Amino acid sequence: MKFIKELVDGERIESVFAVADKQLRTTRAGKMFLSLKLTDKTGNIDAVVWDNAEALSGKFEKGDFIGIRADVNTYQGANQLTLQQLKKVEKTSEYMARFLATSDRDVDEMMDELKLYAMGIENSKVRELVTGLLEDESFAEGFKRSSAAKAMHHVFAGGLLQHTLKVTRISDLIYKEYAETDAAISAMISRDLLIAGAILHDIGKAVELSPGPVFEYTLKGRLLGHIPIGLMTVKARIDKIDGFPDEAADVLMHMLLSHHGEYEYGSPKRPKCMEAFILHYADNIDASLQGLMEYAGKDNAEGKFTAFHRLHERYFYKGRPDLGEDEE
Amino acid sequence: MKFIKELVDGERIESVFAVADKQLRTTRAGKMFLSLKLTDKTGNIDAVVWDNAEALSGKFEKGDFIGIRADVNTYQGANQLTLQQLKKVEKTSEYMARFLATSDRDVDEMMDELKLYAMGIENSKVRELVTGLLEDESFAEGFKRSSAAKAMHHVFAGGLLQHTLKVTRISDLIYKEYAETDAAISAMISRDLLIAGAILHDIGKAVELSPGPVFEYTLKGRLLGHIPIGLMTVKARIDKIDGFPDEAADVLMHMLLSHHGEYEYGSPKRPKCMEAFILHYADNIDASLQGLMEYAGKDNAEGKFTAFHRLHERYFYKGRPDLGEDEE
Amino acid sequence: MKFIKELVDGERIESVFAVADKQLRTTRAGKMFLSLKLTDKTGNIDAVVWDNAEALSGKFEKGDFIGIRADVNTYQGANQLTLQQLKKVEKTSEYMARFLATSDRDVDEMMDELKLYAMGIENSKVRELVTGLLEDESFAEGFKRSSAAKAMHHVFAGGLLQHTLKVTRISDLIYKEYAETDAAISAMISRDLLIAGAILHDIGKAVELSPGPVFEYTLKGRLLGHIPIGLMTVKARIDKIDGFPDEAADVLMHMLLSHHGEYEYGSPKRPKCMEAFILHYADNIDASLQGLMEYAGKDNAEGKFTAFHRLHERYFYKGRPDLGEDEE
Amino acid sequence: MKFIKELVDGERIESVFAVADKQLRTTRAGKMFLSLKLTDKTGNIDAVVWDNAEALSGKFEKGDFIGIRADVNTYQGANQLTLQQLKKVEKTSEYMARFLATSDRDVDEMMDELKLYAMGIENSKVRELVTGLLEDESFAEGFKRSSAAKAMHHVFAGGLLQHTLKVTRISDLIYKEYAETDAAISAMISRDLLIAGAILHDIGKAVELSPGPVFEYTLKGRLLGHIPIGLMTVKARIDKIDGFPDEAADVLMHMLLSHHGEYEYGSPKRPKCMEAFILHYADNIDASLQGLMEYAGKDNAEGKFTAFHRLHERYFYKGRPDLGEDEE
Amino acid sequence: MKFIKELVDGERIESVFAVADKQLRTTRAGKMFLSLKLTDKTGNIDAVVWDNAEALSGKFEKGDFIGIRADVNTYQGANQLTLQQLKKVEKTSEYMARFLATSDRDVDEMMDELKLYAMGIENSKVRELVTGLLEDESFAEGFKRSSAAKAMHHVFAGGLLQHTLKVTRISDLIYKEYAETDAAISAMISRDLLIAGAILHDIGKAVELSPGPVFEYTLKGRLLGHIPIGLMTVKARIDKIDGFPDEAADVLMHMLLSHHGEYEYGSPKRPKCMEAFILHYADNIDASLQGLMEYAGKDNAEGKFTAFHRLHERYFYKGRPDLGEDEE
Amino acid sequence: MKFIKELVDGERIESVFAVADKQLRTTRAGKMFLSLKLTDKTGNIDAVVWDNAEALSGKFEKGDFIGIRADVNTYQGANQLTLQQLKKVEKTSEYMARFLATSDRDVDEMMDELKLYAMGIENSKVRELVTGLLEDESFAEGFKRSSAAKAMHHVFAGGLLQHTLKVTRISDLIYKEYAETDAAISAMISRDLLIAGAILHDIGKAVELSPGPVFEYTLKGRLLGHIPIGLMTVKARIDKIDGFPDEAADVLMHMLLSHHGEYEYGSPKRPKCMEAFILHYADNIDASLQGLMEYAGKDNAEGKFTAFHRLHERYFYKGRPDLGEDEE
Repeated sequence: MKFIKELVDGERIESVFAVADKQLRTTRAGKMFLSLKLTDKTGNIDAVVWDNAEALSGKFEKGDFIGIRADVNTYQGANQLTLQQLKKVEKTSEYMARFLATSDRDVDEMMDELKLYAMGIENSKVRELVTGLLEDESFAEGFKRSSAAKAMHHVFAGGLLQHTLKVTRISDLIYKEYAETDAAISAMISRDLLIAGAILHDIGKAVELSPGPVFEYTLKGRLLGHIPIGLMTVKARIDKIDGFPDEAADVLMHMLLSHHGEYEYGSPKRPKCMEAFILHYADNIDASLQGLMEYAGKDNAEGKFTAFHRLHERYFYKGRPDLGEDEE
Repeated sequence: MKFIKELVDGERIESVFAVADKQLRTTRAGKMFLSLKLTDKTGNIDAVVWDNAEALSGKFEKGDFIGIRADVNTYQGANQLTLQQLKKVEKTSEYMARFLATSDRDVDEMMDELKLYAMGIENSKVRELVTGLLEDESFAEGFKRSSAAKAMHHVFAGGLLQHTLKVTRISDLIYKEYAETDAAISAMISRDLLIAGAILHDIGKAVELSPGPVFEYTLKGRLLGHIPIGLMTVKARIDKIDGFPDEAADVLMHMLLSHHGEYEYGSPKRPKCMEAFILHYADNIDASLQGLMEYAGKDNAEGKFTAFHRLHERYFYKGRPDLGEDEE
Repeated sequence: MKFIKELVDGERIESVFAVADKQLRTTRAGKMFLSLKLTDKTGNIDAVVWDNAEALSGKFEKGDFIGIRADVNTYQGANQLTLQQLKKVEKTSEYMARFLATSDRDVDEMMDELKLYAMGIENSKVRELVTGLLEDESFAEGFKRSSAAKAMHHVFAGGLLQHTLKVTRISDLIYKEYAETDAAISAMISRDLLIAGAILHDIGKAVELSPGPVFEYTLKGRLLGHIPIGLMTVKARIDKIDGFPDEAADVLMHMLLSHHGEYEYGSPKRPKCMEAFILHYADNIDASLQGLMEYAGKDNAEGKFTAFHRLHERYFYKGRPDLGEDEE
Repeated sequence: MKFIKELVDGERIESVFAVADKQLRTTRAGKMFLSLKLTDKTGNIDAVVWDNAEALSGKFEKGDFIGIRADVNTYQGANQLTLQQLKKVEKTSEYMARFLATSDRDVDEMMDELKLYAMGIENSKVRELVTGLLEDESFAEGFKRSSAAKAMHHVFAGGLLQHTLKVTRISDLIYKEYAETDAAISAMISRDLLIAGAILHDIGKAVELSPGPVFEYTLKGRLLGHIPIGLMTVKARIDKIDGFPDEAADVLMHMLLSHHGEYEYGSPKRPKCMEAFILHYADNIDASLQGLMEYAGKDNAEGKFTAFHRLHERYFYKGRPDLGEDEE
Repeated sequence: MKFIKELVDGERIESVFAVADKQLRTTRAGKMFLSLKLTDKTGNIDAVVWDNAEALSGKFEKGDFIGIRADVNTYQGANQLTLQQLKKVEKTSEYMARFLATSDRDVDEMMDELKLYAMGIENSKVRELVTGLLEDESFAEGFKRSSAAKAMHHVFAGGLLQHTLKVTRISDLIYKEYAETDAAISAMISRDLLIAGAILHDIGKAVELSPGPVFEYTLKGRLLGHIPIGLMTVKARIDKIDGFPDEAADVLMHMLLSHHGEYEYGSPKRPKCMEAFILHYADNIDASLQGLMEYAGKDNAEGKFTAFHRLHERYFYKGRPDLGEDEE
Repeated sequence: MKFIKELVDGERIESVFAVADKQLRTTRAGKMFLSLKLTDKTGNIDAVVWDNAEALSGKFEKGDFIGIRADVNTYQGANQLTLQQLKKVEKTSEYMARFLATSDRDVDEMMDELKLYAMGIENSKVRELVTGLLEDESFAEGFKRSSAAKAMHHVFAGGLLQHTLKVTRISDLIYKEYAETDAAISAMISRDLLIAGAILHDIGKAVELSPGPVFEYTLKGRLLGHIPIGLMTVKARIDKIDGFPDEAADVLMHMLLSHHGEYEYGSPKRPKCMEAFILHYADNIDASLQGLMEYAGKDNAEGKFTAFHRLHERYFYKGRPDLGEDEE
């Protein structure tokens, strides 16, 4: 079975895809047809079904997987599919693997590394909070599968975990840098809370976004958002730990509430302590670098700059400057 | 015992006040003295202790109540006290009544009216949530005593309850107005959730602010804020109600999260449904009118306008225009 | 004569529509044709004229009414018209009724209710101002026909009146709520000015927007805006009332100038008195609820949320949460 | 009679001043005294009355003129007055001249020049509007006496006229610059409307601010602001001119409504035509240069920069750079 | 050879155009074709090559000039070209003249006038700086050819020079206006620095934008921007002038750094002296008037207003009001 | 000689201080006196000279060092000095050491470490640029002595160097973190440019601020700012290095221009490449942590929170939460 990126104009194929969009339309001549958008982890493709459209339309929904026989043709530089046959198929794990883009890194390895950080927390109560969550299968399952942001492109299963691990590592690096050279600053930082906050900061995203292959905001995601969802998850677990130090709980929850840094980015609090500042910047660093890399990776603009990025309101430089032949 | 507002230049008094501020200072000549700010529910007054200052200073703290004998004198138009004697006294309920400004309205009557609204909620789960909270003595105690905003001036015990009741009443009025005349709009409003949201919207304030007589932000208040605190309180109670409808819980929590309307006012979500809009505006109406009334009430500026209000960046019109002799 | 929503693919019809847009184009083959957008109060439809396009184009303008004979066909799920014949027709009241979406509520009934509010103003001068305006046929005619905002969709004749009446009712409800329970606040509110301000607040819109069926900004609307237009209308009438109390006039005009609340929404003043705050929030409540209802009503997105609203920058929740079977 | 700037430490004087502030206070020892701020056009001075303070306080108000006998002494580098005698005096024109800082330029000359611009308007209706206003004695009286902004310092009688004339001259210069060299731009400018708009743009300030010697916002100024006040004045006059061209009136009023350029500066409209842009920038140029000159003139900071300007949030460079000995 | 604006539906032409865009595409039937956008100084036109597309595509690039034989046809009201033959041609000056829209004014005349201003600078060092730059052929060449803003439409060779000259003239007019009437202000202005700053303010644009016929941001333009580029150019030249007065250099560079007025428009400094304010407003005046003229000139909207301008967020009034028959 | 922090009420001292402020004043009784603010690296103290004030005032200036004999007394809790004798003294290095707070870390050690980073740059041209600057004694002298921000408190000689080294180390840590785990991201980062940019990013501050003991903005600092000053310094050095790779120069200068991240913080460009993002966040991390540590260190507020920080608009949490007795 070929992936979407491998299709060649003119060939006939048999394959399985996920349905990303589905509309029943009518031609100018009054004939009904099905207009579909199909997807796998390599991209999207438009497809049409000319025969028996109305009947077929009732047999599957957006989000389903379908097996097809189709001809590949090209329109304005892009491939399209004309479907000859289609039928709904089960979401077997084999098929799932075709549709769900995943992290380049091994998910379980990353999870193990994150657990090592959790186990390194010295305070027993704080450690219990974090390891308890990571060891909880019902949580870990969703957490490992979740992306770190909405929409199929630039998002993949394991993305949330990969981001969380990176933020934890960077937070720890910064802590160690100051611990080594600056006693006055490091005296104001609790490494335990910093590591705990870094691991927990985005856990609400596993609920805010639906599991793949199509990553979308859930109802809870839209009404509550990942910061309040994560807060409530952490609070419920703290309440079950006997003797969890009260002020430490407040500082930890403050870190979650303030990690976007400013009100206008949805933080109901702004950073007020060392740990909150470090978490906020570590989060920004990874989001900026990964975002730029992914955006540049998908970008088609000729030259050294990407196309204009609407959200960031700028053209990004995607090259590496030529430092030239170094004569030395 | 005279209240602060009743003091007259030149008289000698015996009374009891709360200590709002305390500093041990030294005169130019090197003599130690105590500089105090004393308070009761009618206002503040500066006071000095010239004799035995250092020893006396160790005997009480800011926040304590002290019984004094003192002379009233005037400096730059304001009364001051020169203390002859002072001793710390117990915080008896009699004294408490002297210091704690309270709502003009009877707190228990207001609480009863609020409970009537709660009992009028038709859905049994939502009603159980709200009545359960109001009937919970450990919650109700603090709720009834709390102010609705920080700082002694323009704030009073019962203020949170009075505001909550008003927001509930206005929300209900608006619901009824549309229910009566506009089916398309009222069909989109759940009165049960609207009333529940109105009653619960500010409950976090009972934790965000310390109990009087001096209303200050607590550690939890500064690190978490009343919106997340209220959210966690509501969530914990919902989790204990078997079969609480899930989406209703999300809408209710959304109302709490969005009731400040915009990110820059600390709302992590902005209103996305009818109930959230009504709650937001009902909250704004009562806060604006009560705030303007209190600010104008304390204002000393000559003429029709108050002094410049720094937060609102304007002079308020505090008069009522003279509509003249109406000849009819 | 069929309405646009009633047309069926394949039928031939004779009907009358208003011309919402008109362009003379040329096919790839060089043939001229007319491309039209036609409208009635049920919606819009694209239409083409293949024969004699150039000559026909000179016979009518955008905004005119035309009688047509045409075939209905379908393209990409939407009906289109191929016109066989067309001729311009007069704007008779019968045709007008076909094109002009109107309030669900009886316009004259609403006008009568608004007049009752006006007549309930106690001060004779203020009452004379408001009733004088509402009784002035040349004003009332346009006022009753006007929409409350631009653009055909989500706007209808009588919309301005319906909004004005609702804002007046809500303002009065809020006044009464405080009058009943809070003497200190209600003492600062003049109900006469509040009611007058509510009735007058948007009268400039009858000039800012063109009369239907196509609601567009007028030249005066674009250069001056409804707030200054309304101000000048009120001022001119006040100047003609002998002995109108001067300060009351200023407060009333202040309410008009500040009812959008903030500079960035086009208010040259921000609310500085009780009446201005109440009017501002009453206006916001009705605009928000009605806007959300209309937007959700037109929305086609699957699920519980509307499509993304560009102006409000959010997805609205359009459902009512399922409160479940209540077992009691 | 000496001016405030001429007073010398140690001398006894007899003079007349305006009362800028008045407070009845009590010394620490319980003695009443009067604390005054006196003013003339050369500056302010603090003054005290030790004897008979209470009785004297009832005999004059803030804003009155008083004749005094007093001793000059110095405190912390500033002169003060200790009053021996005082009595209220009439506001004769001779005294008025002492208190009212006035433009360096002759007011009547400036008025004549402005009238010349008005008479140079070619269109008879527009000319009638502007000359009619300038010739109207009841208007001209206040206009000539008004300042261009609030508060005694950096403000003077004739300031509004001087600013208006400058804005008119600069607008005309810009018009001529483009008329001479750029037909496409100048074809879009009506010089008549430009000159009329420049002359009329700030006329509301004569009502927004009280007449001197103390320039303060009036009630109308605070509730309505000079833009809406000016608009109503212009509209009322246009209504009395038979056949005034309607669209010209709208453009002219648009210029008034948009001359602050942006909503956040209180403009309910932003510039949409050539004339409005020119007026906006001409107004900004004169306000910026005159403001900087006045601020630097009063500034006492050592070095090349003024003290920090709170409103403009910057230190201004007040020097002229030394271009050095030019050897050529 | 016909210009693009002169082409008539149905004719066959031979001409030369610049290639503004080039894409190799495939029809639905799988056939390759070339889709081009061609341009000359009168506009753009779409073109297709059906035969031999792949081979031809390799023979020229975007930005090249091509000679063609083609048929003109029309689609949806717009002309298109179907190319029969094409070959790349050299960029001769004759062809260059066809593609490069230029200022209506003679570039050399404008340059001479600008030099006159430069030579009128009294201080020999400042004069040397400015004349040195204008006389430097390698600079002058690019400066004279540069546009004043990005993108082919509304931009032309010589645009930067024309804008610079206008800003210089307006700055001088404003200087003279104050020099004539206001000694206190003009004493704070150095005309030498004002003229020098006006001439130099935008010189970085000659590097920020590529030379025509297609004006685009260069790599330096995107990474550095014209303000820092201009600053470095000026600094390097000042460093080579012996005895250039130091503080004058700082003020001059401050003018460049602050001429956009506010941080959010890319100014790293805001105006702090007279010269900087005058330059800032003179720049704004010319940019606003010319921008409005060009936008209105290209605008097709019916009526008195342009289409909505996205950047300025408004509809511009493009008419001149009818002042009517003036009966006098 | 005692430091200011060591002074005891009642003693007579002989010492040397720097003059931070100087004013000649007059007592109420007309007597001249000198009011001074004196400073050393431990703090500030007010001082007065009662005798011979006018003559003494002419003998020294603000910024000078004076030797004094004085009595220590206390007023409102703060020590003051009454000077008996004073004379100006030379700024010997011994005295300098008394006044100039310096980094806790050895300046030369830090400089050596920074040079190691510079020497580790692989590209010979980029390395030449950075080492050339650090080895340039005339630059290094000022750089090592400079503070990283204005105003005596929380600023010290060596502060700029300490901050620069920390930003370089953090940038390198982040680079290595991605280099180790993420090929796609690290492939887009030039470590050479990152290290060079980190070392150079704030070099303009050595010119923007005056050398201690009083750190103030210089004329160049106010007119140009440290970003443009640094840019010009780097550009001038690049111009002298033969064959410096052009695009690398542009990226490096872009990093300087964008390191404040947003326009409103004075960056004329916003980050567009990996290196610019890393530098921006590394700068923010060190500024935030060091700023919070210094602010908390000076803070006197009782409890867990600092006083309100006006610039950051928040109370900072200055505690470390008590994690309790950990029973394990």
